[in-house]
Formats: sequence, C-alpha cells, structure tokens
Amino acid sequence: MLRFNSDYLEGAHPNILKRLIDTNLTQTVAYGNDEISISAKEKIKAAIECHDARVFFVLGGTQANYLTLDSLLARHEGVLCTDTAHINVHEAGAIEYSGHKVIAITGKDAKLDVGDARKYMESFYADCTHAHMVRPGAIYISHPTEYGTLYTKEELMSLRALCDEYKMKLYCDGARLGYALASPKTDVTLPDLAKYCHAFYIGGTKVGAMFGEAIVFCDPTLSPDFFTEMKQHGAMLAKGRMLGIQFDELFSDNLYYNISKSAIDHAMRIKAEMKNKGYAEYMDSYTNQQFFIISNAKLDEIKDDLFFDDWGPYDENSRIMRITTSWATTSEMVDRLLSLM
Amino acid sequence: MLRFNSDYLEGAHPNILKRLIDTNLTQTVAYGNDEISISAKEKIKAAIECHDARVFFVLGGTQANYLTLDSLLARHEGVLCTDTAHINVHEAGAIEYSGHKVIAITGKDAKLDVGDARKYMESFYADCTHAHMVRPGAIYISHPTEYGTLYTKEELMSLRALCDEYKMKLYCDGARLGYALASPKTDVTLPDLAKYCHAFYIGGTKVGAMFGEAIVFCDPTLSPDFFTEMKQHGAMLAKGRMLGIQFDELFSDNLYYNISKSAIDHAMRIKAEMKNKGYAEYMDSYTNQQFFIISNAKLDEIKDDLFFDDWGPYDENSRIMRITTSWATTSEMVDRLLSLM
Amino acid sequence: MLRFNSDYLEGAHPNILKRLIDTNLTQTVAYGNDEISISAKEKIKAAIECHDARVFFVLGGTQANYLTLDSLLARHEGVLCTDTAHINVHEAGAIEYSGHKVIAITGKDAKLDVGDARKYMESFYADCTHAHMVRPGAIYISHPTEYGTLYTKEELMSLRALCDEYKMKLYCDGARLGYALASPKTDVTLPDLAKYCHAFYIGGTKVGAMFGEAIVFCDPTLSPDFFTEMKQHGAMLAKGRMLGIQFDELFSDNLYYNISKSAIDHAMRIKAEMKNKGYAEYMDSYTNQQFFIISNAKLDEIKDDLFFDDWGPYDENSRIMRITTSWATTSEMVDRLLSLM
Amino acid sequence: MLRFNSDYLEGAHPNILKRLIDTNLTQTVAYGNDEISISAKEKIKAAIECHDARVFFVLGGTQANYLTLDSLLARHEGVLCTDTAHINVHEAGAIEYSGHKVIAITGKDAKLDVGDARKYMESFYADCTHAHMVRPGAIYISHPTEYGTLYTKEELMSLRALCDEYKMKLYCDGARLGYALASPKTDVTLPDLAKYCHAFYIGGTKVGAMFGEAIVFCDPTLSPDFFTEMKQHGAMLAKGRMLGIQFDELFSDNLYYNISKSAIDHAMRIKAEMKNKGYAEYMDSYTNQQFFIISNAKLDEIKDDLFFDDWGPYDENSRIMRITTSWATTSEMVDRLLSLM
Repeated sequence: MLRFNSDYLEGAHPNILKRLIDTNLTQTVAYGNDEISISAKEKIKAAIECHDARVFFVLGGTQANYLTLDSLLARHEGVLCTDTAHINVHEAGAIEYSGHKVIAITGKDAKLDVGDARKYMESFYADCTHAHMVRPGAIYISHPTEYGTLYTKEELMSLRALCDEYKMKLYCDGARLGYALASPKTDVTLPDLAKYCHAFYIGGTKVGAMFGEAIVFCDPTLSPDFFTEMKQHGAMLAKGRMLGIQFDELFSDNLYYNISKSAIDHAMRIKAEMKNKGYAEYMDSYTNQQFFIISNAKLDEIKDDLFFDDWGPYDENSRIMRITTSWATTSEMVDRLLSLM
Repeated sequence: MLRFNSDYLEGAHPNILKRLIDTNLTQTVAYGNDEISISAKEKIKAAIECHDARVFFVLGGTQANYLTLDSLLARHEGVLCTDTAHINVHEAGAIEYSGHKVIAITGKDAKLDVGDARKYMESFYADCTHAHMVRPGAIYISHPTEYGTLYTKEELMSLRALCDEYKMKLYCDGARLGYALASPKTDVTLPDLAKYCHAFYIGGTKVGAMFGEAIVFCDPTLSPDFFTEMKQHGAMLAKGRMLGIQFDELFSDNLYYNISKSAIDHAMRIKAEMKNKGYAEYMDSYTNQQFFIISNAKLDEIKDDLFFDDWGPYDENSRIMRITTSWATTSEMVDRLLSLM
Repeated sequence: MLRFNSDYLEGAHPNILKRLIDTNLTQTVAYGNDEISISAKEKIKAAIECHDARVFFVLGGTQANYLTLDSLLARHEGVLCTDTAHINVHEAGAIEYSGHKVIAITGKDAKLDVGDARKYMESFYADCTHAHMVRPGAIYISHPTEYGTLYTKEELMSLRALCDEYKMKLYCDGARLGYALASPKTDVTLPDLAKYCHAFYIGGTKVGAMFGEAIVFCDPTLSPDFFTEMKQHGAMLAKGRMLGIQFDELFSDNLYYNISKSAIDHAMRIKAEMKNKGYAEYMDSYTNQQFFIISNAKLDEIKDDLFFDDWGPYDENSRIMRITTSWATTSEMVDRLLSLM
Repeated sequence: MLRFNSDYLEGAHPNILKRLIDTNLTQTVAYGNDEISISAKEKIKAAIECHDARVFFVLGGTQANYLTLDSLLARHEGVLCTDTAHINVHEAGAIEYSGHKVIAITGKDAKLDVGDARKYMESFYADCTHAHMVRPGAIYISHPTEYGTLYTKEELMSLRALCDEYKMKLYCDGARLGYALASPKTDVTLPDLAKYCHAFYIGGTKVGAMFGEAIVFCDPTLSPDFFTEMKQHGAMLAKGRMLGIQFDELFSDNLYYNISKSAIDHAMRIKAEMKNKGYAEYMDSYTNQQFFIISNAKLDEIKDDLFFDDWGPYDENSRIMRITTSWATTSEMVDRLLSLM
C-alpha cells in the first residue's frame, strides 16, 4: 500500500534521531531551560531575523493555536478567520473551550481576504449594538492554508495594517510553514512572517520533526507569563530538551528549508504530471498538498494500492483527492503514484 | 418622542407592581424557596401541562441561554442554530465563554430548517474526521425568532425527532414567547412547547415583567444540580421571591396571554395599515415585531418624532425599520405612529 | 415567628418602591444607559469622592465578585483571600468556573492579615518553582467580613501597599458595606475605600435595595470593556434602570448611611444586652451581624419562636447563633428577641 | 557535577530508543490508532488485569490530571485532595482553568486520610448551605505521593468505599507509579489500583519513557468521548505511535517494573547508609524519593559537587534535601553521592 495521505506518516528526520541517541544519557535541567533548547531558540531567532523574539516549544498544532490565541486575546474577544480555518473545523472546539468565539467568514481560495475582513470590521463598528457582540481581537491565518494556498507579502502587510488599525493581533498557524517557504510561488520569507505577525508558530510535526511546534512572539512584550500559561494548559514537556533537539536540528544547515524543498519538488512533479494526464485540480496549490478531482470509477480502481486523503464528493461522479508529500517522500514513491493514476 | 424601538421600555405590569408593594415587608426565605416562588412554579407547571417539570427563575435571557445550554451539553459539545440566532450574534460570546462552540447555519426566515439541520448532522457523521470536530449536542431555536417568525407544531415535532435520532437536546429561547402564543398564525401551544423541547424558557422581561425568565426542564431528570449551577454562574437572586412575584402574577388569570394578545392586536393593526399605506415588509411577521422597508427620505422626515430600531440598510435608498409593540402599547400610541408614516 | 436570620428577608426600602411606581411607565433606553442610572452613578462618584471612577450595576454579590475578579486578573492568576472568604466557601466555585484559583490562607478574626499575606507572597517568590504555581494577581477582602469584623484604615493602606509592591489588585466585597460605614468602631470612610482599593462593590441587596450591587473601578483605566464582559457573563439587566433606581434612592439624602445606622443601633443594643444576660460572644462584632454561643438547651427552648442563622456547633453543649439586623429591623422586634433570650 | 535532583534528567530507556529507530520510516495512521499503540494498550490491559479498560496516551502529568478530572467531574463539582497534592500546588491552576475547585485538606504523611475525607464529606452535607458550595465529585490521590509515601491496599479500598457512598470518582495520579509498585513496603499491585480506582494514569516520563503517561479508565462506561476531549484540550499527538512505542516497550518483559526496582534498590541503599551516617529523614519514604534534613554547613560544603532538589528550610540551621533515583541511576553514582555526604 502506497501512502500519500498525510505529511506525518513517518517518524523523524534521521538527524533528529541521531541527536536523540547521542544525548540520551546527558543530564539536563527540565522544562526547556536546557542548553539544547536555548541553542534551538537562538537559531530560530537568527533565522527569523528578530533577535528579541521569544520562542516556546509545544507539542502540537492545536495546542499552539489555542494556547497562543488565548494569551493574545482579551477575555471577551474572539478571533476572525475563514470558515475553512483549522481552528474553526478540526480542533474540536479548543478555542471555544478557552472561552473565545471563532468568527468565521467565507474565505477566498481558503485565504482570508483583507477586503472581506475590513468589511467585517467596518460593519461590526457600524452596528450600534456591537458592545453586545464579540469583538475580533485577533486575525488567524494559516500559511500555507488548509488548501495549500499562499498569502503574498502584500497580503500579509495589508492584514497587519488592518490589525493595527483595529487593535487586533495577527497570528499565523504555520503547521506546514516549511512547505510555504520552499514553494516556487511565494515571495514571503521567514523574516517577513516575523515582521508582519504579532505571533506565529513554525510547524515541526509535519516538517520532519518527531513532534513539536515553535511558537514565536515577534513582539517580546506580549504574553510575559507564557511559560506559566503553558503549564496551566498542560502544555509543558518535562524533558523539554526533546523539543529543543527537534528544532536545533531542523534549524542547522538549512535543514528545515531543504527537506521542505524536497517535498515541494515532488509535489510540483505530481502536479505537472497529473495535469498532463488530464486530471483537473480542485485547488491551484504550489505547496506539498495537491488536490485533484478524480472520478469514482478511477478511485475504485486504485483503492487497494493507494492511501490518500478523501476530501469528500466533488459531484455525483467524482471526489476530491488530496495527495500530500513530505520530507520522507522519495522519487520511487512518486513514480509508483503516477504509474497508478 | 414616540418610542416603538423595543418591548422593554417600560417597567412592569401594574399587577406585579401592586404585588411587590403588598408583600414588601413580608419576611421570606431566600434563593427562590419562598412560598410565592413555589406558587409561581406550580402555576407554570399547570400552564404547560407538565407536572413533573422543574422550573427555575433567572434574571435575563443571555443568562437563561448560556446557563441552560452549558448544563445540557457535554463538555465537548456545541450547539446548532441559525446564523441569526441571538446566542450567535448578541450575547457577547456567552456560550463560548462557557466553553461551547456555536455552530451556525443559514436559517430560512430566521428559522432553523429541519432539512438543513439533518443535512448538517448527516454530513458531520459522514466525515471521517468528526471525532476532531465539535459535535452538536443541542439544537437552539427561538420562538418567535429574532425576526418575529414562528415555528409550526409540525416543525417542532420534526426538530425533536431529529434531536432524538442524533442524541441532541432541543432547547427553545422564549424571550418573546407570549407574543408567539398570542399570534393569530400559530398552532403551537405552551403544552406543545413543553412536549417537544427538552428545555425552554418563558420570557418575562419582554412580556410585562420587571425582569425575569422562567427556565423549564420538561424532562425532570435533566440537570439535577441546576440550583448549584445557577449559583456557580452568579445567577441566583438572594431575594428570589422578587422573581416569583413576576411569574405568579403573569400566570394568574391568564395575564401572560392577555397582555401578549394586546400587543399582537396592535402589531397586526400596524402591519395591515402599513401595508395599506404601501410600505413593503422585510419579513412577514405575525408577532409583536414588525419589519418594514422605509426610504431614507421618509426616515429623515420622522426621525425627530419616532424612536424605532434600525436594522441596517436594505439598499442604497432605504433601511429596515423594526417596530415593536408590547403589553404597554396603547391605541393612542399606534394612532400617533400611523399618522407619522 | 420572629426572624433575625438574615439581612435580606424583606423587600426594598419604601423610597425605592415609591420610585419604581412613579417611573413605571416612563420609557427609557436599556442596559443602564438611562438617565436614572446615570444620575445614580454620579451620586456614587460624589459619595466616594472619586469623580473619574467607573460604576456598573449588577444583580448580586457572587456575580459582582467573579465578574470583577475575572476582569482584574490575568488568565493564569489567582486571588488571595482568607479561608472564610465568601468566594472561597459560598459561591459554588464561581471564581474557579471563570478559571482562577482561590488561594485561601487562614484569617485572623476572618480578616486577611497583611503580615500573613506578605509572608505568602515572599515565600511564593522564594520558591524556585513559582512559575509552575498560581500567582496571586489580586487580594480579595470583604468589609465587613463574613464574621462582621472590620478592617482599619491602616490595614487597608498596608494591604494596598503590599498589592502595589507585588503588582496585585486590591478588591473589596462590600455586600454589607453600609453596616461597616455606620459602625461605631470604624475609621474607614467610603472615600477611603475608594482610595485604597482598585475596585470594590457597594452592596445594595443587604442594605435596603430590592436587589443590586454597584461595582466601582476606582482606577478608570481598568477593565475598559467591562460593559461587554457583563453581557458575556449574562450579567446585564435589560431594564437597567431598575438597578439605577435602587442606587439613585440609596444615595439620596444619605439614605444608605442612615438605614445602615439604624441596623447598627439595633445590633449594638442586642450586643450589649446579650452580654448583660451573660451570653458569650463568638466574635466581637460591631456591625449588623452578632454571633453568640448558646446552649443547646436554650436553643431548644426558643426554636419555635425565633428564626436565626445556625453557624454550627461550638462545642458538645452549645452552638453558634448569628443574629442579623437590617434597615427593616424595628425596636419592637428587638424587644421581642431580647425577651426570648 | 553529580545530579540527583529529579527522575527525568535523562532521555529514554535504550529499548525505547531502539524501537524509535527501528520503526522510524514505517508509515502508520495518526492519533494513536496505529498498531503499535493498540499493542501497547493491550499489554497495559493485561498488566492491570482489566480487559475492558480504556487506555489513552498523553504527554505529561498535568495534562493527564486536568484532562481526566475535567472529564470525570460534573461542571459544578470540585476535587478533594491533600494540601500537598500536585494539582493543588504545582500545576499552575490547570484544574481551575478547566473550571473546577481544588478542595485541599491537610494530609497525613502527604496522604489523604480516609477519616479526614469522610469528616469533610459529612460536614459538607450537614451544612444546610451546601447547595451554595462546591461538591467534591472526585478524590485525587497520588501513589506514591509527592513525598514518596504509599497508600496501603486497605486505604485504597476505604477511599473507594467512601467514593461509592458519596457518588465520587476515585482518581490516582501515577506519575511515579513504577516506584510504588517496586517498593519493598507496598501491598498494592497494578491490578489492585485498577480495581479500586475509577481512573488513574501510569507515569512514563519519570519511569524510563522519553515522555508520555497512560490514562486508564477502569470503568469503560466513563468518558465515552475522551478522544474528542483530548483533541479539544490540545492533548492529541499527531504521530501518536511515538507514545505507543514508549508503553509498548515499557510493558514488554516486565521492563516497567524492572527499571523501577533498580531505582528503588539504589534508593533503599541511600536511605540505609544516610541513616547510618546519622542524617535524619524528613519523611520515611520507601520509594525513589528520599528526604533528608541536612545542615546548612554541610550543604555549603557539597554544593559544587551535588545537584539535589532543595525543599526549603527545615529550621534555621538546616534544610530539606530531596534525593531522587531513577531507572538511569547507577551504583557508581550512588557511591559518589554517599562519599560526598
């Protein structure tokens, strides 16, 4: 069975595994105050070109999102996002559990359109009952989005300007950030992201780590007690260095970018060849997630050989198939995939 | 200035005021365990023809909604409703504050269509990732709706059947319930509501009370510790009899129905005469809220004489005007209103 | 049956009742933005000699406490108080429901000793694991305390100094505040309270109002969105003027002080005569709550004639009896009480 | 520098590391539904002799505690425990963040005395205001306790009987459970624990795992939607097999017990020889945490050579030193420790 159904099917990049072995018997202090974690944070700060940023490691994306947003928002504020946003759909209500409304508006190519967001804010404040409503205190975006699409640098700038105007924070979910940075169609760099967002996270789980996401507060005055908030939310790893190791390796020798690039190269080949074969794309993605419209007959034919992610029916006769590459994808796997299609 | 902007502009019905005066120096036990409150609860149970129901008095609609829903829902469940639902728009995120997602779908005439609700539930369970999503544990409806429309008995039955099928609770916000019961177009009685809902509240604030809503659990096994939950949410009135007095009067001699009927009669006269005058309706309402499309020029003309509720622009040249009658509306007030239009 | 078991047995002071009647058919805007509420707030600001304070009316003490503390505290902070504090014992976990730990230390005469509080803070910060613990972000006191005792002006000053030193807010629960201000043994005035506390509430329910507490933010920069937070917690009264009326009357012609003084005079007479009769006091209170140690035999003798509050066993042969006077207590009632003892 | 300050200084037991390497490129389904995780759960169910138990893996102790307790408790219930309980002191208010009061009573040797717990419950229900108070819905114990002490089988039985009587759940924090099971002074087996607790967790982090705790619901009807609740709390690991691997190894060939036994043997040697040297014990512990009273002079002498956990001053001249052994402790390390003392 060939599996292209997600980017977290395998374990960790070999460099990470090697480091875990090499340091296994080293005794370190706990809770991320160890030297490896400190080194990893320094490397991240260098990579984002923001030396006074504050970096924290947590274990998963939902944890990163609800923890950071709960910290950025006032008690009575909500978060504005698209209807397809991960926090709106696939986090089991974690944001609401922390007391905040997810205010979802229809996205464009799964992106939050700054014009639509502005319209929302204008009509919010134009409504004389707005003090009885949930004020958006932050904007949530994901880059790449849940559908593999990408914000441009100009879009990021505009979203940040909107946030500044309405006293909101701009927060970016970077679960697959590596695959955005390595896309052939992006003009957004890691330093750009750090410049325009108040906070974001750099995804490890889907980009070569065994687990772990690096939350970055670009503005160092935000969330001064985040360490305690992590503990309060059960988000603190006792052997914190395990997280440090992931990012210390990923941010050595450009590894985070390089393994993302490899995944993107495979994805672009799949995209091109699938189009050549006449498959229609459901979304014009230039990242590691590729979406195709496949007839039910074809799906039936390949179902015993290929494990992919089924994104539901497209119409009566076809469905949306998501193919995901990762750092662990090989040319041989792509060959086999394409020979099946 | 003539005011038709809401149904809670005045104080309380004179009977209630008289009772407050008559009992002012009576010493009673606190927290709603007094004889007046007990009498009021018995009258309500008789009126809804559900003698083992449990009745609790709270002070306002938002409090009733979030308190009851938090009690009916499991920790990880959300509540399904229309996008225009009061809990989704005008309760400042109270439901989310209590940890639950408001799952809003587009309504039809501001009502939750049972077909749409069923479609939502079917596609929820058809989604293989639904364990990562927020399961609706209750359906919220308001009767009449925020736009004055009404559910039919058959619709209530269908919604309840859907709830039973998917193990959800059916909850009804009855902020303006009297105005539904007294509508010329309804086939839903108070006993019907008690029969088809797991819980609902009978609105006092907008129907003649100084304040207060009566939460009814039709199934007496639900929320066994609701008294403590009320206290935990700061929803307990020390001098609980003040709430008992409201409902003991409203449910004497059919007062709740009679004053609602008076408001409806005035509303129906306004509806008919406004149509005669050629004004278009924004919503075909048969309750105490009437919605008309009024030109900006006309609005400008009357703005110093009439205070109404502005529901935003209809198009470039006109806006939606809400006119609300209440128990306190008089024929003279309606005369003046109509002479202005 | 003679009732001395609480200070909220009766309805409202006649002036309030009269005002409710006089204004019943007046049409006003909702949610506390009416002229009566505004007038009441101005009178309170004058009385506390703090003209830029912000005043909000809510319906009960638990609501006032958890709403204000949730607003004053950061998400991960707790509130320091005595083990007998109302928030620690009798509010059904409302503070915890809003996410904050109640950190209770043993009180002295039911008061928070500033020395003990300082010791707590010093040892908190001396503990190298304090980032894993709940930091007190506020101190909660009640004045008078749950046992009728009083803080001195010097104690208030010291508590405030401690708060300033450790970046905490000082919050005072004034459920029975009138009875503190009118005590013969106090040197704390209302302006003092406003000077030393960041926020406090002036209790209406137990001091002549039908219901209602006035939350005062002495520092006007605190909780800028408190109106929305009230709505979010279901603490907004639609007909807000009902609350305005309570306080507009209580703060006219010194009524709040005068009716408190009457209750205190009765309490002091009871205190003196009970001591003359040889009853031991459980607590040396100079406010409207008086605590005596009564033999079980005596209690058995009077149990059909007097309703008092039983505060549990003192020893095998006696129990603690709480006698509470109020604005509605009369000399005749006190005569009858004393003749029974 | 010799480190004896905690039991999570090193990485993972070599068997776990080996398994991580061996399975690194295996592609598995996510979220703990993979074969390794399923195998691990089966081994745990066999070890606890409770074949219909439900097992879930999470990443840390605070997460396990607040997640499980939030799931076991009704919305308005609290949890009863000792004042030294980890949830009361060192979890940054996670329990309160989830809305529940931690009701702490003084422990005996850091254990919850069943007589004291019974007294609390009796006086709770004897208090006529108990509906205004937080009802304990669960009892939290830790085994071994935070001070290394152990419950007897009879004590567990009595606590469970008390829970059954008062409709509470018995929950056990097993952060260091291995060290209890391997203690020479225990009569409690893993099946006993499963028999008397409604739920407990088997600690991995402190007993040889890289990370991870196994939550066990002994009664399979409890918390039917725990998977979704985990997601809602951000406690789901995408690559869930990483957790499965920890426990699949720990529960192979008695590894969990054997490595715990090794730690205990070292601890017992330290205990005996320290007593021989004349050091007084602060707590008579038979698990892997040993507590000694050490003079300030001695501490000053060894401070550059030994890293231990300082539990604060014992008196003016001495402090409490905690020495912790683990699966990674060697005889040579113990030799060096003892030669220093």
